[in-house]
Amino acid sequence: MRKEESHIVSSFDDELTRLNNIISQMGGLAESQLISAIRAISKRDSELAEQVIVSDLRIDKLEQEVQDFAVRVLALRQPMADDLRQVVTALKLSNDLERIGDLAKNIAKRAQVLNQMAPIRPVQVIPNMARLAQEIIKDVLDAYIENDAEKAQRVWARDQEVDDMYNSLFRELLTYMMEDPRNITASTHLLFIAKNIERIGDHATNIAETIYYRIKGEDLPVDGRPKNDAANFAVIEPNEAGE
Amino acid sequence: MRKEESHIVSSFDDELTRLNNIISQMGGLAESQLISAIRAISKRDSELAEQVIVSDLRIDKLEQEVQDFAVRVLALRQPMADDLRQVVTALKLSNDLERIGDLAKNIAKRAQVLNQMAPIRPVQVIPNMARLAQEIIKDVLDAYIENDAEKAQRVWARDQEVDDMYNSLFRELLTYMMEDPRNITASTHLLFIAKNIERIGDHATNIAETIYYRIKGEDLPVDGRPKNDAANFAVIEPNEAGE
Repeated sequence: MRKEESHIVSSFDDELTRLNNIISQMGGLAESQLISAIRAISKRDSELAEQVIVSDLRIDKLEQEVQDFAVRVLALRQPMADDLRQVVTALKLSNDLERIGDLAKNIAKRAQVLNQMAPIRPVQVIPNMARLAQEIIKDVLDAYIENDAEKAQRVWARDQEVDDMYNSLFRELLTYMMEDPRNITASTHLLFIAKNIERIGDHATNIAETIYYRIKGEDLPVDGRPKNDAANFAVIEPNEAGE
Repeated sequence: MRKEESHIVSSFDDELTRLNNIISQMGGLAESQLISAIRAISKRDSELAEQVIVSDLRIDKLEQEVQDFAVRVLALRQPMADDLRQVVTALKLSNDLERIGDLAKNIAKRAQVLNQMAPIRPVQVIPNMARLAQEIIKDVLDAYIENDAEKAQRVWARDQEVDDMYNSLFRELLTYMMEDPRNITASTHLLFIAKNIERIGDHATNIAETIYYRIKGEDLPVDGRPKNDAANFAVIEPNEAGE
């Protein structure tokens, strides 16, 4: 998809392709780690959670590989303009994907704790929220591979849905805790799990912004979608917490 | 402190100095943002919290400056070995410092919510925990400026204290929520604030590891201090939650 002048050293394109391949691989892993972490909650499968925790190392190693490789490319090839932007994009994307992997690992750790407790009702919202986050990761990676700025922009806008689900679940969990103190410990872990999924959505949003910038050379227009922080301002009183 | 061969282009050292200066500036800002965010909680000062939220932009801009500058240095100077490591170190450090700033901003946002509610007892632990995190940030920046691997290693070990405080506060907050449902909303926000401080400690730890690696050329020996995840495994039952 390279349009301008050919490079003095022809293998620069190969190097970019290799970077893109590692990024795609990281994205696929991050997506599947999230799916498995959520399944570990819904199926109450602590062994699966353990696998997620162990597998996170693979994403970490790929990030290191991207970093080492990108730095070498920058130092040896001195890319300029569009080429430079592609290498920097790979660096940023690998960082966000590594953090998505980390968050999936955190979810898996809390899944192991939740599985030791009696199941609680609000847990049912988690798979829906996670499915949305996972779709966003998948679509944003497609936008990356297809060099599609408009798709990146559409994906970016969808993060609002994840935030809305988080805000609604946050309130539900507070209410649920107030109903019965026996719900408090499990609800607290669920709260952190929901927060982790919300942050995964934020990283997917970062990725969409990075891709948009790489293709268009300008920032994604943000005025359409102000960041919704409603849950930070939630004040739920015990008397609202009826059956 | 540069010992090997002199550089072809003499201003490379100036460039490294400039990178180090921006990093130091970011570190100082991150530290003061944390101090202000915590003061906004203990003094119940929502205007101060607002200032922290607004000032976060300054840290973000410095990070962007480090990134742009480092990429330019890498592309134009093609640094190798120790020089290359110094530039990559600056990139990593700016990333961790930006995230510390972000976490301080999150704390400030929640401070504004807490200030709308009646004060709760466990809030008193927060300033102690934050002071420790702040000392760690300060010491790790000293280690960076002084090129002191041993100091970086000592700082790194101290993060355990932050984790211990977090784990103890986590349990206290669960108990406190169980005592009276009216405590639940404020306690939940406090839980996230404590988690943010704990994560600030983790980023300071990352910084210590990066510095150690830059100086020694090898990973910091980690066997002395396994990561303490105890709070992830906390199971507090309502019947433990007495006065």
